[in-house]
Amino acid sequence: MSGNTFGKLFTVTTFGESHGEALGAIVDGCPPGLELCEEDLQCDLDRRRPGSSRHTTQRKEADRVRILSGVFEGKTTGTPIGLLIENTDQRSKDYSKIKDQFRPAHADYTYHHKYGHRDYRGGGRSSARETAMRVAAGAIAKQYLAAQGVTVRGYMSQLGPLEMTFKSWDAVEQNAFFCPDADKVPELEAYMDQLRRDQDSVGAEVTVIAEGVPVGLGEPVFDRLDAELAHGLMSINAVKGVEIGAGFASIAQRGSEHRDEMSPEGFLSNNAGGVLGGISSGQPIVARLALKPTSSITTSGQSVDVHGEPVEVVTKGRHDPCVGIRATPIAEAMMALTLVDHWLRQRGQNGAVSVTTPQLGQR
Amino acid sequence: MSGNTFGKLFTVTTFGESHGEALGAIVDGCPPGLELCEEDLQCDLDRRRPGSSRHTTQRKEADRVRILSGVFEGKTTGTPIGLLIENTDQRSKDYSKIKDQFRPAHADYTYHHKYGHRDYRGGGRSSARETAMRVAAGAIAKQYLAAQGVTVRGYMSQLGPLEMTFKSWDAVEQNAFFCPDADKVPELEAYMDQLRRDQDSVGAEVTVIAEGVPVGLGEPVFDRLDAELAHGLMSINAVKGVEIGAGFASIAQRGSEHRDEMSPEGFLSNNAGGVLGGISSGQPIVARLALKPTSSITTSGQSVDVHGEPVEVVTKGRHDPCVGIRATPIAEAMMALTLVDHWLRQRGQNGAVSVTTPQLGQR
Amino acid sequence: MSGNTFGKLFTVTTFGESHGEALGAIVDGCPPGLELCEEDLQCDLDRRRPGSSRHTTQRKEADRVRILSGVFEGKTTGTPIGLLIENTDQRSKDYSKIKDQFRPAHADYTYHHKYGHRDYRGGGRSSARETAMRVAAGAIAKQYLAAQGVTVRGYMSQLGPLEMTFKSWDAVEQNAFFCPDADKVPELEAYMDQLRRDQDSVGAEVTVIAEGVPVGLGEPVFDRLDAELAHGLMSINAVKGVEIGAGFASIAQRGSEHRDEMSPEGFLSNNAGGVLGGISSGQPIVARLALKPTSSITTSGQSVDVHGEPVEVVTKGRHDPCVGIRATPIAEAMMALTLVDHWLRQRGQNGAVSVTTPQLGQR
Amino acid sequence: MSGNTFGKLFTVTTFGESHGEALGAIVDGCPPGLELCEEDLQCDLDRRRPGSSRHTTQRKEADRVRILSGVFEGKTTGTPIGLLIENTDQRSKDYSKIKDQFRPAHADYTYHHKYGHRDYRGGGRSSARETAMRVAAGAIAKQYLAAQGVTVRGYMSQLGPLEMTFKSWDAVEQNAFFCPDADKVPELEAYMDQLRRDQDSVGAEVTVIAEGVPVGLGEPVFDRLDAELAHGLMSINAVKGVEIGAGFASIAQRGSEHRDEMSPEGFLSNNAGGVLGGISSGQPIVARLALKPTSSITTSGQSVDVHGEPVEVVTKGRHDPCVGIRATPIAEAMMALTLVDHWLRQRGQNGAVSVTTPQLGQR
Repeated sequence: MSGNTFGKLFTVTTFGESHGEALGAIVDGCPPGLELCEEDLQCDLDRRRPGSSRHTTQRKEADRVRILSGVFEGKTTGTPIGLLIENTDQRSKDYSKIKDQFRPAHADYTYHHKYGHRDYRGGGRSSARETAMRVAAGAIAKQYLAAQGVTVRGYMSQLGPLEMTFKSWDAVEQNAFFCPDADKVPELEAYMDQLRRDQDSVGAEVTVIAEGVPVGLGEPVFDRLDAELAHGLMSINAVKGVEIGAGFASIAQRGSEHRDEMSPEGFLSNNAGGVLGGISSGQPIVARLALKPTSSITTSGQSVDVHGEPVEVVTKGRHDPCVGIRATPIAEAMMALTLVDHWLRQRGQNGAVSVTTPQLGQR
Repeated sequence: MSGNTFGKLFTVTTFGESHGEALGAIVDGCPPGLELCEEDLQCDLDRRRPGSSRHTTQRKEADRVRILSGVFEGKTTGTPIGLLIENTDQRSKDYSKIKDQFRPAHADYTYHHKYGHRDYRGGGRSSARETAMRVAAGAIAKQYLAAQGVTVRGYMSQLGPLEMTFKSWDAVEQNAFFCPDADKVPELEAYMDQLRRDQDSVGAEVTVIAEGVPVGLGEPVFDRLDAELAHGLMSINAVKGVEIGAGFASIAQRGSEHRDEMSPEGFLSNNAGGVLGGISSGQPIVARLALKPTSSITTSGQSVDVHGEPVEVVTKGRHDPCVGIRATPIAEAMMALTLVDHWLRQRGQNGAVSVTTPQLGQR
Repeated sequence: MSGNTFGKLFTVTTFGESHGEALGAIVDGCPPGLELCEEDLQCDLDRRRPGSSRHTTQRKEADRVRILSGVFEGKTTGTPIGLLIENTDQRSKDYSKIKDQFRPAHADYTYHHKYGHRDYRGGGRSSARETAMRVAAGAIAKQYLAAQGVTVRGYMSQLGPLEMTFKSWDAVEQNAFFCPDADKVPELEAYMDQLRRDQDSVGAEVTVIAEGVPVGLGEPVFDRLDAELAHGLMSINAVKGVEIGAGFASIAQRGSEHRDEMSPEGFLSNNAGGVLGGISSGQPIVARLALKPTSSITTSGQSVDVHGEPVEVVTKGRHDPCVGIRATPIAEAMMALTLVDHWLRQRGQNGAVSVTTPQLGQR
Repeated sequence: MSGNTFGKLFTVTTFGESHGEALGAIVDGCPPGLELCEEDLQCDLDRRRPGSSRHTTQRKEADRVRILSGVFEGKTTGTPIGLLIENTDQRSKDYSKIKDQFRPAHADYTYHHKYGHRDYRGGGRSSARETAMRVAAGAIAKQYLAAQGVTVRGYMSQLGPLEMTFKSWDAVEQNAFFCPDADKVPELEAYMDQLRRDQDSVGAEVTVIAEGVPVGLGEPVFDRLDAELAHGLMSINAVKGVEIGAGFASIAQRGSEHRDEMSPEGFLSNNAGGVLGGISSGQPIVARLALKPTSSITTSGQSVDVHGEPVEVVTKGRHDPCVGIRATPIAEAMMALTLVDHWLRQRGQNGAVSVTTPQLGQR
């Protein structure tokens, strides 16, 4: 496989460049009989869509997705689902400068050396625009999971130095930041406004949680559920770290504290983040991802051009000052895709997916 | 694939249970003509081997590896390399108790529900004993990389609350902790001795670094080098988090600080950890992993048995009080395996691997 | 993988139903720097296109292919190539009858039982219309091979009872049958005209040959070049048999006759069909495939409906009386895709592809 | 994947050279709870074992297989099954001559050019000895299928010019040829005796049939059941052709004759060989394979050495004068492996495997 496919039984293969004609994907392996329409996908695409608030890029993309195959009379047929989004807002600007320069912290330098020939317009394939198809495909995965009683949801848990406390899922959908605490939103807005004045960008942390996952998903040894989740989440643009459950806090924990004891009523804690030995335990699956600050800022930076000569680079254009803000639906998509893939693998190799009632547990 | 294979062109498939007859692996896709003998593998196996200090499990395993195929007259032939380690110290103790109990934070509960029928002796397939074959296979990968001028090395960077500063690679190999600071070792020993008296365990952080990696390894979009590295490292028993470069610290960084500027002499920093857009940049590749504290402690804990009845569990036996201590060679193995796989993929799809001189850079 | 992907390093994933909105494919792993434009694909699509003579289906499809990504300024970039063909001639006829009936020798019965819910219009995904995307993707593979000096060409070698002798490649492209003997064409036309009057269909044999293939392509043991070729060719609709070199004639051959002796000038015969031990030998690779007669004929046949009740089925519509006639470009595509995949695998695992001069040899 | 793995959910990866230390395999993805012991594998290994009659190679291998993991208390656990057969009869003869010569129709020439460095003793990895592990792994697949009511059996249907008629399965196991007609055996023996006197070898045809296969196995488009079957069967050493159902006879058939009509009692014929649109139809799956004559004969042949100089080659040693004789268990193994893999894939992607009663049908 050549890098543009995710999953083994429920697979997503994507194509498309930032300023190319279109983005597309093929979702293969979706079980037949699932109710599905374009609106189911559009809903998540709209949550990710650029230009929906002043805190994200001002590129205007309708991001209307078409389902070209695999759905008949409102239900999936088990054949591959073709998805397409035409690019409509590829500004025809002058790229002669970016063409020969390597923007710091971008993939320009590595694509140039890997491929020799590259589409430099807007970052080409390395642009975060690619993630639109992940969201569209992830929406299908979510739809499948929902039919099994599994919910995958995420929120922003930190914006630069500002940590957020989880208050409610309702709050998450009522602001541009996916912030789970409505009271915190004004502070976030003020921070972002100052950031733009500083011509700078900042990192973020996103938390994703799957609830209702039955016991038994995940294939040890290498294809552990948490390992594939880490793979999926780390593959999102700008992600520099992934942790499950207690994550990096485990380092300083003692065994007597970390281990999640059990009672007949369920687990007494969830330091494991819902995964034991690489297999889902029935508890909520909790993952957190660290996103680096946007590399494209209007503050000039030192770099080199393709000839090795020093240059000063200023990245103009329409960029998110915090790529983490729009990352929540993408992270949800990757978790949903991972879960459905393992759902089918469990069903294939080990027979029916366990239907034991998921245990209660807290983070 | 059914979970016991890692890699796409340079693949490792392993088998074996903690108390079964043997552990084994097949390394497929190793290029022909590489000098290789059993001693090359034994060296790393000995670094991982249990019982080498009082701070690790007292199980005594010779861990002698045999190469059964794929090597002829001292060189690889390009055909699959069969590896075998016979288990010699499977104590025949009474397992009637553990058989029906779920030890907290172990995979007992999830294996039971996933498979129905499981080898409960010593954790069976979920035991960290499985990682011996990763180390053996990883040694082949390291051998290949060494021939290309790439070095993969790791060290323990934190033990519970005790952080370590990198002093030298020489120091790392001269103590039982893979600690890079000789002066710190007495403190670590004292901490571990107290921990044993407390009948408890603790987590750890391991850092792995690859130097000499050329530009161009890694397949965007999903098979990014960092994503597959995260996959490999997170698949190691007890790992709860993985970060690349600045990792979780990126969250609070600003773009002007995080982005690694470049000059004709090379990168000026390495917040990226050697990966840009999922592709190696020629800088050192830096990954850190968080390992949870050992779940097997002699302090009793609350759990349930297979019938759902409450039980008190005390895990006796020979266990590492800090699984992180022996994790360094395993982490090196997973990084080496990931790099060789991408080396071959780069050579396959994009022609020769770039031989541009790797740039200097610091963490 | 879920069945709609072919190849491991150079992969093709397709989607699309006979009467759906569009057909599409993603070609992933194509090396960068290859010159490619839509016309390169259109050329082969036109060779396969329906309605080009009275001997094939009268469905009129423009089959205009669009390249949506992966090509920039006339050359491939190494990123996935998205392909799209909109369906334009999906007749909106009454399908109420076919919906509940299983046409004999069609996939109606098996799709119904496998998926429960299916797109019955024109056979849905099981229609040979799907092969258009194989031809489009195969044209990219051919373009790559051509740049390496490899030619993949096919011809019809038998139509029902009428065998054809190879005369010239030029002849092949000058008639509607891909017949390599111009003198034979009138006989074929007469046969086909009578066949239509008989309201019947007939089988065919197609021969595909790759010339210029270097020594060393093919991965033993399971992924032998001939095994993957058999996989690819047998996956074409209506194919019931595949043979390499002497094929089924080998059964009655003696070893002294079959074995291809060698001299310093090259092989003295080619019973092997260019593959020894699963690896290309440098001789022409010769494969033949047997195609069954079209199942859709207007002569009524006995069958059952979804309720198990007996029905008489007459398949009206626009069908090829001999599916083998349009199979030549499809067979070429599958052989080309197989060869490029193994070309990249050889380059990945075993270094550079051998450049020894291919040996002369005859069938 | 690097060529030594077969299957996607139920995978077999093998290693081992003809004259190396051992042969081995890892069977991954076998569902838990299947009763399995070494004797179940030994039974088929003994059917394939060399030296069991004067008509096969006189190499004496005990071929005792050990199960090293994945089975606990007589049942599979769902973890990988490690298999090992130690080589015991590797004659230490002088290989200095074969080392530099290319035996006609052997893989010597292609391995030399592909890998540069090869184990030339007895053909190394390219020896048919490798198929022992296929048979061992296939026995596990058969065991699984048997538990589902599926039987996979084969017989020799042609030996050189001598065709055999199917009389009974009992007959097949009562002679050294897997001949289904006891009355034909003396003729076969006389033919083989003459062949040895002629210092020559001959080809053969083997037929394999799976009965009891439910409707619904096989993944269109590329991973059709028949395509993967062709892949598996063509990957067996010496196989030059594979056909399903009517196979090559379909070429001259008319549609009205070929199409298998259906009645409420089932299919009226089985030209399809049990596969429609790449999916099993519930009828017996019928495949035939053509095996070339053994290349190793004592009649001298013309060839070249590694320096390109002409040589006369006489292959002494212990060789089967007809490799097809021992091919029946191998062909059964590959069909069984293919079916189990698709069984699990069907269960994974499309839910439970259909349990409709397989229809009666004849070839």
